[in-house]
Amino acid sequence: MERIKPRTLSGFMELLPGKQAKMERMMDILRKTYAQYGFAPLDTPVIEDAQILLAKGGGETEKQIYRFSKGDSDLALRFDLTVPLAKYVALHYGELAFPFRRYQIGKVYRGERAQRGRFREFYQADIDIIGDGSLSVLNEAEIPAIIYKIFRGFGLNRFCIRVNNRKLLNGFYAMMDLAEKSGEIMRTVDKLDKIGTDKVRLLLMEELGLDQTQAEGILRFMAISGGNAQVLTALEAYSGRNETFDQGLEELRAVTENLAGFGVPETHFAVDLSIARGLDYYTGTVYETTLLDYPQIGSVCSGGRYDDLAGYYTEKKLPGVGISIGLTRLFYVLDEQGMLSEDGSAPADALVLPMTADPAPAIALAEQLRSAGVRVQLYGEQKKFKQKMSYADKLGVPFAVLLGEDEIAQGKCSVKDMRTGEQVLLCPEEAAAHILDGLAAGQSTVIRER
Amino acid sequence: MERIKPRTLSGFMELLPGKQAKMERMMDILRKTYAQYGFAPLDTPVIEDAQILLAKGGGETEKQIYRFSKGDSDLALRFDLTVPLAKYVALHYGELAFPFRRYQIGKVYRGERAQRGRFREFYQADIDIIGDGSLSVLNEAEIPAIIYKIFRGFGLNRFCIRVNNRKLLNGFYAMMDLAEKSGEIMRTVDKLDKIGTDKVRLLLMEELGLDQTQAEGILRFMAISGGNAQVLTALEAYSGRNETFDQGLEELRAVTENLAGFGVPETHFAVDLSIARGLDYYTGTVYETTLLDYPQIGSVCSGGRYDDLAGYYTEKKLPGVGISIGLTRLFYVLDEQGMLSEDGSAPADALVLPMTADPAPAIALAEQLRSAGVRVQLYGEQKKFKQKMSYADKLGVPFAVLLGEDEIAQGKCSVKDMRTGEQVLLCPEEAAAHILDGLAAGQSTVIRER
Repeated sequence: MERIKPRTLSGFMELLPGKQAKMERMMDILRKTYAQYGFAPLDTPVIEDAQILLAKGGGETEKQIYRFSKGDSDLALRFDLTVPLAKYVALHYGELAFPFRRYQIGKVYRGERAQRGRFREFYQADIDIIGDGSLSVLNEAEIPAIIYKIFRGFGLNRFCIRVNNRKLLNGFYAMMDLAEKSGEIMRTVDKLDKIGTDKVRLLLMEELGLDQTQAEGILRFMAISGGNAQVLTALEAYSGRNETFDQGLEELRAVTENLAGFGVPETHFAVDLSIARGLDYYTGTVYETTLLDYPQIGSVCSGGRYDDLAGYYTEKKLPGVGISIGLTRLFYVLDEQGMLSEDGSAPADALVLPMTADPAPAIALAEQLRSAGVRVQLYGEQKKFKQKMSYADKLGVPFAVLLGEDEIAQGKCSVKDMRTGEQVLLCPEEAAAHILDGLAAGQSTVIRER
Repeated sequence: MERIKPRTLSGFMELLPGKQAKMERMMDILRKTYAQYGFAPLDTPVIEDAQILLAKGGGETEKQIYRFSKGDSDLALRFDLTVPLAKYVALHYGELAFPFRRYQIGKVYRGERAQRGRFREFYQADIDIIGDGSLSVLNEAEIPAIIYKIFRGFGLNRFCIRVNNRKLLNGFYAMMDLAEKSGEIMRTVDKLDKIGTDKVRLLLMEELGLDQTQAEGILRFMAISGGNAQVLTALEAYSGRNETFDQGLEELRAVTENLAGFGVPETHFAVDLSIARGLDYYTGTVYETTLLDYPQIGSVCSGGRYDDLAGYYTEKKLPGVGISIGLTRLFYVLDEQGMLSEDGSAPADALVLPMTADPAPAIALAEQLRSAGVRVQLYGEQKKFKQKMSYADKLGVPFAVLLGEDEIAQGKCSVKDMRTGEQVLLCPEEAAAHILDGLAAGQSTVIRER
């Protein structure tokens, strides 16, 4: 037979079973946390009508999109989960209850140039809360709690949720009579982390034509930092001069004041006035989440408040707030940094090894253990004992359960802890309890900081 | 702004939140059951190199596949989960432990002509056990247990797992000196259910040129039925004349004899000698699962034993056994039949309704309930009481939790059971327990037979 060399396309993540198990654990944490906050799971097609996906059109999106025809249809693969959400809400408007809270964890496609750590197929994990005409700022205040729970759930502690408010920025630039240049200014200020204050001042003056007072004013504003109370006090000094600014400040207060109530410690939260994000989309609170030890990878969970989700499809005003986690990239980075925990990747908790010709006792034992909640693989291959144990090792199962003539005669089984080598003779009920106790004791988070 | 009418492509399933919740419950049952039997979750790209997906080539597959170019690449969307598995195992052979047990629940694509109940994008839920060179028949015996657990887990009871063995069939036709016509005969015999014995006899004689003795012999063989013991006895009568037949009988015995041990009652299992399935692929045990009340929809979970998973990609001999559930179609049919249960579709267990201007007490209460394991949505919109309750109704949440001045003063909250209308004043710990008890009492399966 002529053979084709198997390969996986570059830019497409395909994990070995041990790593896939960790990815699944992360997805499970995401699903559970989102559900805890009343988000409904949603699933939309990967393929949509190209006209609909490209309603907004233009730019990078159009270049990167996977677009093709089938019959008469002009089709495309979704490049994010926001456009399909907008379509969904516009299409099913009459059948949804608003505020509509949905989460979606799904693959999206961008034909980017392939390079290390860049993916053409990747998971996004999104939540959004969509209002019908209006949406309370309380929803914006709740988002940091969800981000916090997720990253703590993963096992991370050294991260910071950074928050800003677009109204504050727009109001501030209006006060400075720089409203028209605000887009360019924000893009320049966004480089503060990378190129530093002096270079940003230079760019503001030389490229954007600001005078020294204006440039200094902007840099002074951006430098406002500290605890929540401190930042709010500093911002108070600017209030009363612009309505938009004042509204932004009020929203920022609503978000920061309720943090503790939502269970987010101040140590994991910061107001950062230099954050702008998606300039033509976000209109209120914006979020970024950075890993303190890996600032170079940028934000791992971002989003914000917007006023018009689905204007391309409906005249209904649908404001919302949402965040997105680039799950595939996050997983890749954590793996690269050696932060995926070693254990918890075996497909079973116990491998049952029949040592007799008749498999019946082993089958019964396996079913008993399963009924007790143990994930059991029954090993049916006719191999030497050494090969069986080497398979158990390779799988990484925490327990091997041996069942030979002696054990069967006594109504017991030998349970071997693969980590310690300790082996005990137990009846099935005891074996199940022993294994479950061992699992509970050995439990660790999916990610481990060093 | 010019608007585009939102729509979802025909042949693509997009569910409303209530139904999506049920689909998620079914997926959750699948994941948990597969994991119970030691299957590792796997995820492979939706897009693959077209050459690789089409290695086998020809037939319907090639016509239905979504194939397109991006840059220089000839790409295609996977049309099943078996070909990607074959590629995966061939590609990562050295890094896998065999037997390799994986499950995969993922979308596949076939550009079929759109019609009611036919999907172009649909979920398959597959499990396979792949051996390296050899694979014990014990794995084939375990498969019915997994099918049984899944369908019972869904809430179904009126189904039957039908099993046959290809070696039995091949051996039988060899005995009859009809080996060369066995493919055509099997395709004809497969019509027994639809067109009946007389028409099948006619076809066998007139179209395939069999004599009456041969035709009767085949029909007599196919009519063997009854309990497992009965069927095995009837088959014994044919043994000792053909090695393949005898091997098939031994395998069938291994599968049926261990059923009870695996927890599958005989009521849900039948040997059915007319089942053949994928003629050029399966080589041993084959499975079909039918819903007793809906025979017209055919098998909802099928598969079998094969000897060569990845011959197109590797010279390694990789035998395996697997089954596949067409999840999207199954869900569609169950929904059509009104078999999706009414409850359990709300995105939250409780909706917390703040009745004061300050949301702080409601935030704290919501977090307390969440810590206790209740899925809570906090309602922050400034609406009238009636509108709030109508939202709770529309969401279908089982409990609404009201928090006004009075409740706050007493350190309590009012918990309203939305189904009974009963309202009780409780402290937060009691409220959590009350809600969790109510949920446990009201629990039902995702599918309900009538």
